[in-house]
Amino acid sequence: MTNDRFLRACRREPVDRTPVWFMRQAGRYMAEYQRVRAKHSILDVCKIPDLAAEVTLQPIERFDLDAAIIFADILLPLESMGLQLAFKEEQGPVIFNPVRREDDVTRLRHVEPDAFRFSFDAISMTKKALDGRVPLIGFAGAPFTLASYAIEGGSSRNYLNTKQMMFGRTDQWHALLRKLSDVVVTYLDNQVRAGVDVVQLFDSWVGCLSPADYGEYVLPHVKSVIDRLKPQGIPIIYFGTGTSTLLPLMRSAGSDVLGFDWHVELDEAWARVGFDVAVQGNLDPVVLFAPLPEIERRVKDVLDRAGNRAGHVFNLGHGILPKTPVEHVESAIEFVHRYGTR
Amino acid sequence: MTNDRFLRACRREPVDRTPVWFMRQAGRYMAEYQRVRAKHSILDVCKIPDLAAEVTLQPIERFDLDAAIIFADILLPLESMGLQLAFKEEQGPVIFNPVRREDDVTRLRHVEPDAFRFSFDAISMTKKALDGRVPLIGFAGAPFTLASYAIEGGSSRNYLNTKQMMFGRTDQWHALLRKLSDVVVTYLDNQVRAGVDVVQLFDSWVGCLSPADYGEYVLPHVKSVIDRLKPQGIPIIYFGTGTSTLLPLMRSAGSDVLGFDWHVELDEAWARVGFDVAVQGNLDPVVLFAPLPEIERRVKDVLDRAGNRAGHVFNLGHGILPKTPVEHVESAIEFVHRYGTR
Repeated sequence: MTNDRFLRACRREPVDRTPVWFMRQAGRYMAEYQRVRAKHSILDVCKIPDLAAEVTLQPIERFDLDAAIIFADILLPLESMGLQLAFKEEQGPVIFNPVRREDDVTRLRHVEPDAFRFSFDAISMTKKALDGRVPLIGFAGAPFTLASYAIEGGSSRNYLNTKQMMFGRTDQWHALLRKLSDVVVTYLDNQVRAGVDVVQLFDSWVGCLSPADYGEYVLPHVKSVIDRLKPQGIPIIYFGTGTSTLLPLMRSAGSDVLGFDWHVELDEAWARVGFDVAVQGNLDPVVLFAPLPEIERRVKDVLDRAGNRAGHVFNLGHGILPKTPVEHVESAIEFVHRYGTR
Repeated sequence: MTNDRFLRACRREPVDRTPVWFMRQAGRYMAEYQRVRAKHSILDVCKIPDLAAEVTLQPIERFDLDAAIIFADILLPLESMGLQLAFKEEQGPVIFNPVRREDDVTRLRHVEPDAFRFSFDAISMTKKALDGRVPLIGFAGAPFTLASYAIEGGSSRNYLNTKQMMFGRTDQWHALLRKLSDVVVTYLDNQVRAGVDVVQLFDSWVGCLSPADYGEYVLPHVKSVIDRLKPQGIPIIYFGTGTSTLLPLMRSAGSDVLGFDWHVELDEAWARVGFDVAVQGNLDPVVLFAPLPEIERRVKDVLDRAGNRAGHVFNLGHGILPKTPVEHVESAIEFVHRYGTR
């Protein structure tokens, strides 16, 4: 690997410069991506390995980033289990046959690795094209976040159906999460075999839960996924938003890296989870819309809070927003280089 | 006041039983409310004092609650300032002429108390009908939450326009928040004159901010509102959601009571802000959809965490959801009485 500072930071080894990548770095804010998407749906780009590899590489060709992340969607495992998934322009993901009753859970298919052949092919092609320049990240939705989409049938404000199953039909909930966990493990295990160097579990919406509910209904499943991935020997990142009060529990799930959003101060949150875990974050994605001096000040602040400790990966606190000015992304990366060099 | 335990708890005085009320206790989950709303829009119910008083009293007639809250909407101050406000069935509040540019801020009208005559009349009528049975709560949106609606034109996922003004046109932001703060003070001051016994500031969406941004762009304005209301001598409640990392700063705004949502454990959060402030909360509103034994267990847990300390008001962590089973609301109140009696 020509540039291994991202891998080193994940393992809390010293680096010459804080590594940086951005969630959704391959996305709508880039004209190159828009050109591909003008002709292909999101699901097509995920499933046609040439296209997935192409958009994965776009930000790597354009910016001085320290990691690539394979283009895919956190919900792909749901489709393979028999849920009908589509992406609507404004609304985001929609599932036409959501999981509500017990037989909806029973009906979910166990998935053989072949169901994700397209992902693994995209990974192999991307690895070849990267030629060791930077590591490649694979990912999947974490069990709770997959379950919430599967149950609500899309994004949600209150997670009413999800929590109703959790609180009222607890056996059904755990059966669903076990099934989802198994598929996530199969999917990620085979991403590693196909060549990814790191995996990230996206538990994007887990912040809707109280700590007690997270501990009871979610943590055992995340822990089981991470335990089963560990033998692969690659770093595992676990990320969610709105997780301030969940972080100590999330820490106990056993990932190598914890992702923070901007609701926490990086130094305070890192101290709270312990410096024996690497951390990733945590610039508010909206900051990239601010004037450059303000972006600079805030990038520097995140780096100052990380200090000279080993084990910080610079990132946003959530994905890049669609209308982010591309030159601001470029500048933010430069600021990370400027202030994050030892 | 026949039942003053809510007022006593706000002042951290001993009570015989933990007082309980629910945000949005007058709302769609009640058939009585639906009957009124079948014939009148939300804005009509807010503005026709007879109707506002009627729906305010509905939960008081039906349940054994310790406080009434005047029926109104947190966004009413915006309408009086010249913004065109409507409520759409699924979408919630919409503002047709949002505040984006500097002259949008300049154009916002200063408001004389007479603009809210309907609110004050509704308060007087309600107080008369309550006849001292329980205290009456008045309220308004807090400056940030009003600003976010005014700028976004409705609810928002990322608060992109709001934060762009905040980060990029800071003078304009502060000018807007000063104007909003002045109107909030006028509105609440006159609610007190009309008879409310307590006021609550709803900063519902302030949890989208980092602690540093809250401290710089919001706190001074909330503090100014609270400082100006203090001479009225009535308890002031300050509430937001997703505020776990903001609570110590919110505490410094100086309210008598802090509202917690369910993302924090009540005991831990109370210790963090200090036991010299009263607290309100914090059952997840979705818990009211759970089976009764589960509701009972969780009500008891909140009360156990509050312990025998003076200064806890039982509430949800956000408003009652529209489809909440009304008999579950009734049972939850009974559980508070059962486990919250000294």
